[in-house]
Amino acid sequence: MPVVSQRSQSVPLSPFRKLIPLADRARAAGKHIYHLNIGQPDIETHPTAVAKFRKLPWQILDYSPSNGIDTYREALRDYYARFDVAVTADEIMITTGGSEAILFFLLACLDPGDEIIIPEPFYANYNGFAHMAGVNVVPITCSIEDGFRLPDPAEFARKITPRTRAIVITNPNNPTGACYSRTALQGLAEIVREHDLYLCADEVYREFSYDTELQSILQLPDLDEHAIIIDSVSKRYSATGARVGALVTRNLTVRESVDRYAKLRLSPPGLGQRLSEIMLQDDGAYLAEVKEDYTARRDTVFQRLQAMPGVYSYKPGGAFLLLRPVSYLR
Amino acid sequence: MPVVSQRSQSVPLSPFRKLIPLADRARAAGKHIYHLNIGQPDIETHPTAVAKFRKLPWQILDYSPSNGIDTYREALRDYYARFDVAVTADEIMITTGGSEAILFFLLACLDPGDEIIIPEPFYANYNGFAHMAGVNVVPITCSIEDGFRLPDPAEFARKITPRTRAIVITNPNNPTGACYSRTALQGLAEIVREHDLYLCADEVYREFSYDTELQSILQLPDLDEHAIIIDSVSKRYSATGARVGALVTRNLTVRESVDRYAKLRLSPPGLGQRLSEIMLQDDGAYLAEVKEDYTARRDTVFQRLQAMPGVYSYKPGGAFLLLRPVSYLR
Repeated sequence: MPVVSQRSQSVPLSPFRKLIPLADRARAAGKHIYHLNIGQPDIETHPTAVAKFRKLPWQILDYSPSNGIDTYREALRDYYARFDVAVTADEIMITTGGSEAILFFLLACLDPGDEIIIPEPFYANYNGFAHMAGVNVVPITCSIEDGFRLPDPAEFARKITPRTRAIVITNPNNPTGACYSRTALQGLAEIVREHDLYLCADEVYREFSYDTELQSILQLPDLDEHAIIIDSVSKRYSATGARVGALVTRNLTVRESVDRYAKLRLSPPGLGQRLSEIMLQDDGAYLAEVKEDYTARRDTVFQRLQAMPGVYSYKPGGAFLLLRPVSYLR
Repeated sequence: MPVVSQRSQSVPLSPFRKLIPLADRARAAGKHIYHLNIGQPDIETHPTAVAKFRKLPWQILDYSPSNGIDTYREALRDYYARFDVAVTADEIMITTGGSEAILFFLLACLDPGDEIIIPEPFYANYNGFAHMAGVNVVPITCSIEDGFRLPDPAEFARKITPRTRAIVITNPNNPTGACYSRTALQGLAEIVREHDLYLCADEVYREFSYDTELQSILQLPDLDEHAIIIDSVSKRYSATGARVGALVTRNLTVRESVDRYAKLRLSPPGLGQRLSEIMLQDDGAYLAEVKEDYTARRDTVFQRLQAMPGVYSYKPGGAFLLLRPVSYLR
């Protein structure tokens, strides 16, 4: 009998998975389970967009260009402009979810043995994609006491080695919900410029910044060669199954490198892209309603946690997550 | 300015891409171009299935299970049974196109530096996925003179080294259109059993076998631990943009290893899966019509090539490709 690969045996899986047997056991004991452990929104996918999508005339579901449908990329360009992020359609590459954008970034910009610095706790599957790419994750621990704010630039600088290639952040953060200030991001910008690193920001929760305006790294000056954004429609429009994300950068050499991997897998999902293009036509009403809903949920959960004796909590500024700190590295 | 990865600079791209500037130049000179170089069908995507898909009631486009929607896997199980391939729904893992199934197979079953033997000419992007996985491709050249039939088992045996982990075939073949006989497949089965290798068959063109019945490796006895099938809905239903494929194997350990990579990227495309499930309800009329169409096209191209002085051709038994031999390795 042939054996499987050694690498497959060490793929790090999300620690949230450890909760599943516990939930199953509780359910078997007749208890009702509220699943707060996975990012599957219970909010309806943008209903008017879905209605339009159903009526969209098409005869052949063909390959899209490997970097995505042109009109969708142009619509995204206009969408980013609303966030004061000026990019061209060419600077936007459509991917199969944010997941593929992360993997493509790692493959295009880092070689095996290279390192990325990530504030932890971080999105658990970064570990898995780094494993696939043979890249080492160097965490910097954030603390619940100050609401998981970004560590000082000096702390990042101390973690830099000759193999460091990038700093990766999630803003708003998954899983802490922390939103990073312009000052904090500028601190990182100085570090990546000084050390010739990439600054990769996963901004998939950009619409869910409750107390302050989202600061995108693509708004920062003199960072064009360093800044790479990961994006996704999944949470924004409650369409996690669309599998449509994006990698956005003004660095042409990075785009050319990503493009090689994009060509290999031919194209991102065609139906998801068509739906995403329509969802982008939203006049703001849907997203405003969703944001209001999530704000109320955050406030409720925060207040209830605050009222529980022995529970220390904090008020997340964004995303839709709230947690007690755990280390995500094995 | 940070540099991109070295590995990204050596990703092997499809040689078909070299034709694009030539075509562009000819078009600029006012010539009409028939694009025979990419596998984008001009046939309409299954129209009645698309009509049903438009009416499908859903409110939340959620993540599917990481291995695909259960009812779709069950429908695929019944579909394979029509080909005399007995598998359970659990033995079918839905992927983001056949592309992802190939990559997952390589990551799950091979370590960096391991080798796969592939009869060439072969689907050019196998080189790219092997590059991503750090796997070495060992080609065995097939010859146009005998219609690109599978080389003798002894030729495969001669290529086996201590690093060989699998033999990969495409049946019907892309790009030669060759269909492999049961006897030829049994020869490979003996080799992989003897040397403890995997036999991975990309059977995405299974519906397009014009002169003989398709022989699947999952029909062969005593091969359960070795046989892995790659599949895709792309060409079958003219739905290349669906990005829905599958990896099928009775080997539980392989499935568990693939599952780790599947979980990382959360789920295959939800809309493509829903459409694919409906397309599978086809009563056979659509596929019969498509097959008849492709058969007529094959016959026309073959006859016209035969009639051209100085052109040597052959009659492909399957797929929708026909070519003169070129080496795909750089």
